[in-house]
Amino acid sequence: IGHHICKLPGRVMGIRLLRFSSVVIFLLLLVAGALMALLPNTKDDKMPNLRREPKSQSQSALDSFTLVMQTYNRTDLLLKLLNHYQAIPHLHKVVVVWNNVGEKIPEEMWNSLGPHPVPVVFKVQTMNRMRNRLQIFPELETQAVLMMDDDTLISAYDLAFAFSVWKQFPDQIVGFVPRKHVSSSSSIYSYGSFELQTPGFGNGDQYSMVLIGAAFFHSGYLELFQKQPDAVHALIDETQNCDDIVMNFLVAKHTGKPSGVFVKPVDIRNLEKETNSGYSGMWHRAEHLLQRSYCLNKLVNIYNSMPLKYSNIMISQFGFPNYANHKNKM
Amino acid sequence: IGHHICKLPGRVMGIRLLRFSSVVIFLLLLVAGALMALLPNTKDDKMPNLRREPKSQSQSALDSFTLVMQTYNRTDLLLKLLNHYQAIPHLHKVVVVWNNVGEKIPEEMWNSLGPHPVPVVFKVQTMNRMRNRLQIFPELETQAVLMMDDDTLISAYDLAFAFSVWKQFPDQIVGFVPRKHVSSSSSIYSYGSFELQTPGFGNGDQYSMVLIGAAFFHSGYLELFQKQPDAVHALIDETQNCDDIVMNFLVAKHTGKPSGVFVKPVDIRNLEKETNSGYSGMWHRAEHLLQRSYCLNKLVNIYNSMPLKYSNIMISQFGFPNYANHKNKM
Repeated sequence: IGHHICKLPGRVMGIRLLRFSSVVIFLLLLVAGALMALLPNTKDDKMPNLRREPKSQSQSALDSFTLVMQTYNRTDLLLKLLNHYQAIPHLHKVVVVWNNVGEKIPEEMWNSLGPHPVPVVFKVQTMNRMRNRLQIFPELETQAVLMMDDDTLISAYDLAFAFSVWKQFPDQIVGFVPRKHVSSSSSIYSYGSFELQTPGFGNGDQYSMVLIGAAFFHSGYLELFQKQPDAVHALIDETQNCDDIVMNFLVAKHTGKPSGVFVKPVDIRNLEKETNSGYSGMWHRAEHLLQRSYCLNKLVNIYNSMPLKYSNIMISQFGFPNYANHKNKM
Repeated sequence: IGHHICKLPGRVMGIRLLRFSSVVIFLLLLVAGALMALLPNTKDDKMPNLRREPKSQSQSALDSFTLVMQTYNRTDLLLKLLNHYQAIPHLHKVVVVWNNVGEKIPEEMWNSLGPHPVPVVFKVQTMNRMRNRLQIFPELETQAVLMMDDDTLISAYDLAFAFSVWKQFPDQIVGFVPRKHVSSSSSIYSYGSFELQTPGFGNGDQYSMVLIGAAFFHSGYLELFQKQPDAVHALIDETQNCDDIVMNFLVAKHTGKPSGVFVKPVDIRNLEKETNSGYSGMWHRAEHLLQRSYCLNKLVNIYNSMPLKYSNIMISQFGFPNYANHKNKM
C-alpha cells in the first residue's frame, strides 16, 4: 500500500518536473529572443578581439590621441618634429620608440628645455627592429594612435581634421599616404603608387592601403598585430619593411572593408634632406619597393587570401584652407 | 509507514525540482549572455522605421537607383535632361513628377522617339505642389532615389561616384549641394551658404544640409516624410519651399548624425538660362532665402529641437578626373 501511494506521487512529480522545466525553458527562450531583438546597435566602441578599454577611461582618453614615433639615426629630425608635434591639439602623450641601440636617449636635454605641453616617453629598444613601434606600450592610454615616421611633418590643421575623420571611421586607418596593389592575370601581386595601372574598377584610380607612417588607427590593432602568426613577424624582421602592409591586411580582414580612409593633406613635408646624419630612410634602398611586392605575395600565402579592398574615397576639409574650396561653377 | 516513506520522496523531489530548475535557468542565462556577446554587428541594411524591402528584391533593385525629377513649366529643359539622365549607368527607372496641371504629358512624343534605355513614367499631378515629388510612387522599386531638379545637369561620372558613396552611407543624403544654418545668440536660426559666417567649430567651414534637388537618399525616407505632422506638410505648401530642409531635419533626427554627405561635383551645370519658357525657378523669388530661414525656425518650433548637425567632410573621387589629384608635394 505504501508502495502504491509513493509511486504515484513520484510519477506525478516527474511529470510536473517536466512541465515545469519546459515552461521555464520556454520563458527563458522568449526572454533571450526579446533581448536579442531589442539589442541596440552599439557600434561606436565595438571592436571585437581588440584591447579592452583602459581602466582609467577619462574623457581625455577618448578625445585625444597618442603620437607614436619610431626613430633611428635621425635624432636631429626627431627633435625638430617633437617641437612641432608636442603642440598639436588633442595630443595626449608622445611615445618615442628609440631604435638607436646603445645610444643614450636625449632625456636630459629634453627635460632641460621644459616645460613641455605633453609627456614624452622614450622607449629604449634592445634591437633595431621596424616592428618595435607596433608594441603595446603601457604608456598608451588613448583609443587613438597617431603613428608618424621620424621624417614627416604634417600641419596641425591636417592632423586635427584627420583625427575628427578617424572618430567617424574608428575601425579603419585614417591617413595621408595612399598606396595600392595590382594583380596580374596569374594572381601575382605588385605594390605601388598611382603611377601603376589602375585596378580597373570604373573611372579614376583606387587605393587599397593607407600607410601607417602618417595615420591614425585604433590602439586595439596593436594587440591584434601581436597575435599574428610568427611567420608574419618573421617577414617584417627579414625585410625590415612591410609592417604597414601587414597592418592594412589586418584591418581589411577584421572589418571586411577597405583598410584605410585617405585624407588629402594640405601641408605635408618630408624633412629627409634636412638631416645632418647622412641617413636617408629605408625607402631609398634599391630593393624597397620590390620587397613590398614580395611581402604582398608572402602575406597572401600566409593568410591564404588577399583581404585588401579598393577604395576611391578622398576626403578633404570643407572650406579649408580656401573658404570656397567647395564652390562649383553652376 | 507509507506516510513516512512518501513524504520523504516528495520533499526530495521538491528539492531536486528546485535544483534542476536552477541549473536550467543558469544554463539558459549563460546561453542568452553568450548570444548577446557574440551577436554580429549587422549594420548594413539596418533602417528601422523605413519601408520594408520590396517583395521582388532583384539584384537590380539593390544595385540601381530611381531618378525622380519634378517638373514645372520647363518641358524643354526636362526633355534635354531626360536625354542625358536616361543613359546614366545603374539607373533603373525615371519618374517624372508632372506639375504642369492640365497640360498633357509628352508621352506620345517620348514614345515616338524610342526605344529608351530605361522606362520613364510620367506622374500627372492634380495640384502644383513642391512636395509632390516626395510621394511614395508605386513605380519606385529601388532602395536608392536620385532626386534632381529639372534644371540641373550632373555628369555621369559624378553620379556614378556619388551612387557608390551613397552605398557606403545609405542612411544619409549624399549629394552635390551643401548648405548650412547659423544660430544667433538668441537661438534664432538663419539659412545660407558659405558666404555666411562659419558656425565656429574649428577651422574652415561646416555644412548642415545637403539639398535633395541633386542627391541620393534612401527611399524609406519618403515614407518617413509622409508620416510627419500635418504642420510640416502645411509649411511646405504655404511656402512652396523647404521640402529639402524638412528632409534634412528628418534624416538628422533619425540618424543622430549629420543629415548629409557632400560629394564635390566635377561637372554640374545649371541649365536655367537655356529655357525658352521664361520661367526661371523658385529660388529667384525675392523671398526665397528669407523663407528658408523662416522654415528653419518654424520646424525647430514644431519638432521642439534643432536636429541638424554640422559636418566638414568633403568627398572627391581619388584619381579622377586628374589621375594625380591626390598627389601631394612632399
